[in-house]
Amino acid sequence: MTDVAAAVDQERLWQRHMAMAEIGKFGETGVDRPALSQGDREARTLITSLALARGYTVHVDAIANLFIRREGSEPALPVLMSGSHMDSQPRGGRFDGIFGVLAGLETLEAMDDAGIATRHSIEVVAWTNEEGGRFQPGVMGSEVFVGNKTVADYENVRDSEGMRLGDELARTLEALPEAHLRAEAPEIAAYIEAHIEQGPVLEAAGEQVGIVTGIQGMQWYEVMVDGETAHAGTTPLAGRKDALRAAVALIQELQAITADPDDIVRMTVGKLLVEPNSPNSVPERVIFMIDLRHPSADYLAEKKAAIHDWASRRQGGCAIKVRQLFDNAPCVFDETIVGRLEASARQLGIGHRRMPSGASHDAHHLARICPTGMLFVPCAGGISHNEAEAATPEDLAAGTRVLAATLAAMAQ
Amino acid sequence: MTDVAAAVDQERLWQRHMAMAEIGKFGETGVDRPALSQGDREARTLITSLALARGYTVHVDAIANLFIRREGSEPALPVLMSGSHMDSQPRGGRFDGIFGVLAGLETLEAMDDAGIATRHSIEVVAWTNEEGGRFQPGVMGSEVFVGNKTVADYENVRDSEGMRLGDELARTLEALPEAHLRAEAPEIAAYIEAHIEQGPVLEAAGEQVGIVTGIQGMQWYEVMVDGETAHAGTTPLAGRKDALRAAVALIQELQAITADPDDIVRMTVGKLLVEPNSPNSVPERVIFMIDLRHPSADYLAEKKAAIHDWASRRQGGCAIKVRQLFDNAPCVFDETIVGRLEASARQLGIGHRRMPSGASHDAHHLARICPTGMLFVPCAGGISHNEAEAATPEDLAAGTRVLAATLAAMAQ
Repeated sequence: MTDVAAAVDQERLWQRHMAMAEIGKFGETGVDRPALSQGDREARTLITSLALARGYTVHVDAIANLFIRREGSEPALPVLMSGSHMDSQPRGGRFDGIFGVLAGLETLEAMDDAGIATRHSIEVVAWTNEEGGRFQPGVMGSEVFVGNKTVADYENVRDSEGMRLGDELARTLEALPEAHLRAEAPEIAAYIEAHIEQGPVLEAAGEQVGIVTGIQGMQWYEVMVDGETAHAGTTPLAGRKDALRAAVALIQELQAITADPDDIVRMTVGKLLVEPNSPNSVPERVIFMIDLRHPSADYLAEKKAAIHDWASRRQGGCAIKVRQLFDNAPCVFDETIVGRLEASARQLGIGHRRMPSGASHDAHHLARICPTGMLFVPCAGGISHNEAEAATPEDLAAGTRVLAATLAAMAQ
Repeated sequence: MTDVAAAVDQERLWQRHMAMAEIGKFGETGVDRPALSQGDREARTLITSLALARGYTVHVDAIANLFIRREGSEPALPVLMSGSHMDSQPRGGRFDGIFGVLAGLETLEAMDDAGIATRHSIEVVAWTNEEGGRFQPGVMGSEVFVGNKTVADYENVRDSEGMRLGDELARTLEALPEAHLRAEAPEIAAYIEAHIEQGPVLEAAGEQVGIVTGIQGMQWYEVMVDGETAHAGTTPLAGRKDALRAAVALIQELQAITADPDDIVRMTVGKLLVEPNSPNSVPERVIFMIDLRHPSADYLAEKKAAIHDWASRRQGGCAIKVRQLFDNAPCVFDETIVGRLEASARQLGIGHRRMPSGASHDAHHLARICPTGMLFVPCAGGISHNEAEAATPEDLAAGTRVLAATLAAMAQ
């Protein structure tokens, strides 16, 4: 397995990122490549030409997930799959998603270059519409792939300009005649996704690879605090029903009950609106949103009860309404995959740590149907969904080496 | 002095409020009568016709402050002045301002009806543009009257439709040929303004008259908290610079340092804006405004120092900028006037209490040039600047009786 890792070509991998970054490029380093757009079609054409040049076969399915297959010596065996997505946020960067696809392709090529044959076939996948920036929701391709949804559920979704997803999907499939339409998905032995961390942990720790143990559960709440407006100059505080004062108290209570010395909890109040929002009027209503994430379902269930409980009391004379907008259960990755990735990193002498994923990924859906894992590489300042998103050639290659070594070992 | 109080005609006073409420009426009980508008001109015409019918003389000055004069037996003595304003907020009510003008006129008529002659002349004034709803700033007429500003300072102010104040002022003066333009203001012995409370204190206490001891000082601050945005799912809390978390801590600190068991302090954070205000982004910037009022200049100076001091530290990793937008010193009314109003209320057996004014009034400017006082009557729920503004005929008459008795005693 050190052979395939050694064959990972850092410069080739980097140049492919740079070539892909030209498609949908904005500014110096930004990428705007929405799902099923002309840019997405160009990215598919480019990756397909690279695959065909190596003699791999290319398939698509009905939602235009794209598969690059390096045939194993026993084609009937379940495939090992790796990949990510090629679409970007409207003001995205050069590494989010595309790294996982290019790391997968680099793995196949490194196997060729190292002269490694595998028993299992290996497929590199580019999932359709992970970001959901153009057509909502995101992680659409992987959700259809695992059978949770069908194309019919999504084909009438329209983008902000009124374009129908079904029409753009047909255009995308037509634009890639080299790809064989595959009605039946192959059986999958395991799925491993490489991705930039989108957080600051690896960079701060000076480690090149994160072995992802799972994806945090995520809950979103909308809290509405209803008080009463009044004149700021004349109304004694004792008689006020100040919605902002009540909201401030609730947010501090929330901070207290989610305080975590281990710094694993992610609690954010990112949105808050005040009405009437006038300097000399006591606030009548405050609406704020809570984004709460944690790897443990038990933890989230306990906080959910505490937050819902707010609705049964009054705060500073104000009525409280709580509405849960999302309740995404945590996903725990397969320990065998996690252990294999960790072993590869250790054997290759690459600094690594186990960590949960703060963001959601296609791997969340794949984990429903097969043993699944992910690995992260650092990104500068933890910044993503931004043209300032940055990763180094060395870190991208290190992550790809761990991926290639793991897949090669599993595919033998 | 009980004669003049007994001559105050509750029904006449109420009907005049109702007649005035027809000018600029909206909805059932709303009044929209901006300064120097057609409605303002109609109100001036109505009050002038009532004054002339009683044989009073009517004067205006260059900023169109309107004066109704009941001549005393010694015209050379300084005048006693009482009044308020006739303009309203865009969505105002039937009592704010106009009560003070009609209470003044009722006082003059009650003196006539009771056959009372006075040594001093008494003038009822309607100050131009107290509200500042159309032309900013407000309390413009009284500010020019006391010599703090000139008409030239304001004549080029435009309303939201581009109308120039100077043009509307000329139209208003022309529309009232019955009023004599008076270049020189008379010497003033005292000024007393009657007004609805615009707060809930009198209603809650079951008292009909508030003897106003002064006008609170008012400070406005804009506080800008600058942090750093980050991904809500991936960024550990220890590394965040969460501007909303910092703002919440500052607001709680502010609540603590302004806490007041006597409930005299008025501290309001009425406006707060979050950027980027997205549920899954750590807030980068929060701007909030503080409205702080208190009758004591020392108290306000101490809090001003504490709030400005925020700018010298960081809160939760965030930088803090503090900008003071207003710093209006408190005004303490003349103790002789306060005592006389209180004595009148006591002698008339009208429930009363001393209290500061939470809102600002023309009396604040008058206090610079002569002994000044105010009296309040209750308004339902403390609501004003709203069509729900309400006062009872009984309370309006009670306040007017205290005013009339006090002016009659002082004018003898």
